[in-house]
Amino acid sequence: MGDDRLQFVHFDDVKAFELAAGVTGRPLFGAGAMINLIELQPGSIVPLHSHPHEQLGIVLRGMQALVIDGEAHELGPMEGYVLPGGVEHSAYCGPEGALVVDIFQPVREDYRDRWHALP
Amino acid sequence: MGDDRLQFVHFDDVKAFELAAGVTGRPLFGAGAMINLIELQPGSIVPLHSHPHEQLGIVLRGMQALVIDGEAHELGPMEGYVLPGGVEHSAYCGPEGALVVDIFQPVREDYRDRWHALP
Repeated sequence: MGDDRLQFVHFDDVKAFELAAGVTGRPLFGAGAMINLIELQPGSIVPLHSHPHEQLGIVLRGMQALVIDGEAHELGPMEGYVLPGGVEHSAYCGPEGALVVDIFQPVREDYRDRWHALP
Repeated sequence: MGDDRLQFVHFDDVKAFELAAGVTGRPLFGAGAMINLIELQPGSIVPLHSHPHEQLGIVLRGMQALVIDGEAHELGPMEGYVLPGGVEHSAYCGPEGALVVDIFQPVREDYRDRWHALP
């Protein structure tokens, strides 16, 4: 059964990989989309970047701000977003950090490669 | 700005639509993927169905079981799944109901139509 078939996981059992200093992701890869459960430690930031993939998300705990065109969009629990592909963004979190469900379509193959290469 | 552009929402402000008796969804539509935040009331079920869309999800609260080929996969908080397109499935929840982030790719245009038609 490959990564794109029926899967059930507990995210506690999913290996985490580092996205930025203090920011880790626990991914679940489908065929055409993926979940990345990201955890931001207090004080961590995701530097400005972009990717062609569409990204959606929902904040589960804490506060995550998405900064786009210099404007910070602060999102708390049960707030969601859609970020079209190609839009430069950075992120920071509140003093308690944040837990966020990120979704990418298509799959971030760079993430798949990095995650499968974890020891 | 169309549905597929930059969006920020609080799911409390998103209109809910009925998926089955006692099961509602609050959607966030991107261009190629969507979130559906579904809430199952205790005792509710989602009847057997299938769709060509790939579906992923993560349980936030309570228990949701996905039944595939007669086998029930019971998922609690922080458990996730990938369901390939075309796989028949039904669902039920635990005695406390469930709150689940469902993700579809591509977008369920039937959901988009129904949601936009809400009063």
